[in-house]
Amino acid sequence: MSKTIDFYYDYSSPYGYLASMYIEQLASDIGRTVNWYPVLLGPMFKITGSRPPANTALKGKYSVHDFARSAELFDVPYQHPAEFPIATVAAARATIFLRHKHPELVGEFTKQTYAQFFAHGKDIRDVAVLAALAKDLGADPEEMQQALADQKIKDELKQDIDQAIDRGVFGSPFMLIDNEAFWGFDRFEHIRRWVKKQNK
Amino acid sequence: MSKTIDFYYDYSSPYGYLASMYIEQLASDIGRTVNWYPVLLGPMFKITGSRPPANTALKGKYSVHDFARSAELFDVPYQHPAEFPIATVAAARATIFLRHKHPELVGEFTKQTYAQFFAHGKDIRDVAVLAALAKDLGADPEEMQQALADQKIKDELKQDIDQAIDRGVFGSPFMLIDNEAFWGFDRFEHIRRWVKKQNK
Repeated sequence: MSKTIDFYYDYSSPYGYLASMYIEQLASDIGRTVNWYPVLLGPMFKITGSRPPANTALKGKYSVHDFARSAELFDVPYQHPAEFPIATVAAARATIFLRHKHPELVGEFTKQTYAQFFAHGKDIRDVAVLAALAKDLGADPEEMQQALADQKIKDELKQDIDQAIDRGVFGSPFMLIDNEAFWGFDRFEHIRRWVKKQNK
Repeated sequence: MSKTIDFYYDYSSPYGYLASMYIEQLASDIGRTVNWYPVLLGPMFKITGSRPPANTALKGKYSVHDFARSAELFDVPYQHPAEFPIATVAAARATIFLRHKHPELVGEFTKQTYAQFFAHGKDIRDVAVLAALAKDLGADPEEMQQALADQKIKDELKQDIDQAIDRGVFGSPFMLIDNEAFWGFDRFEHIRRWVKKQNK
């Protein structure tokens, strides 16, 4: 059995943001490492018929409150973005570029990209924002910008999403551990309990 | 400020079942008591445009698995009902009858009604099942059966649901603490953290 957690997330997902801040600790606690899979919720929502909860009657108001409250309760800086949700295809492709070029930077890039959007009010659709982050981390910003238009990178994101859907992924964050599926930051506690039961 | 938790639940909600088993412990830990409000998700789902998750592509398979797994991880007996979801208006009205006649039995009746449906394969639409539970707890089963057709009881359930919707309730379980809203069994941990922050 591979000792990894497959971590699926959309950069426009508040709970994905919170999960990104704790997933490495969780993985470490259960003796695993993280495979980072940025995906897009759009194609998944088409299949499930879901809408972003923030756009739903009753649920919308609650959700926006719960995003900020959850962040506060778990000590993660949060400021609800003025424009939300947004398209995250550029950030996802940038992450896949790093996966090939600097795999050791993917986790840090993910967390910082999330923080730009959910804590610092930056528009992560803006290639310049992504390139600046890449540069800070030691990657080549121009190479990253070029990669965003690279057909191979585009195809890889599409494949990742198709494969995610095949594996039953329909939301963000979504964790697969040896094909056991967990949806939501609030399933971290379930993962810990589940692993304990497996090891009994 | 009233020292209570307003606990809203639909008897066909698996996470409501789990919450019912732990809500009194949670309330006690934070120095409160439980107000039990059985409601019906139908009218709420009409407003939010939601469907029961078990009937949704991708999410459905996951949900049914997560119901049973969550129960196992939190040590609550669970057997997914053959027919699910079901109409729970009779069970809700029976609970409201007890609220007036034997308020001290409402918590126990709620937990046992849930267990009949989610652990013992009983059909809780069946008035005889509800009446037998009431009898076991010391209430008058015939009086309960009559109450199910009592217009006052019917109206009170409708009022409870209308008031719940006015307060922003859209799912089950749903907890309101001094009008702070928490949705889901997985928000119990959030409630504990939130109360701690309030008391600082």
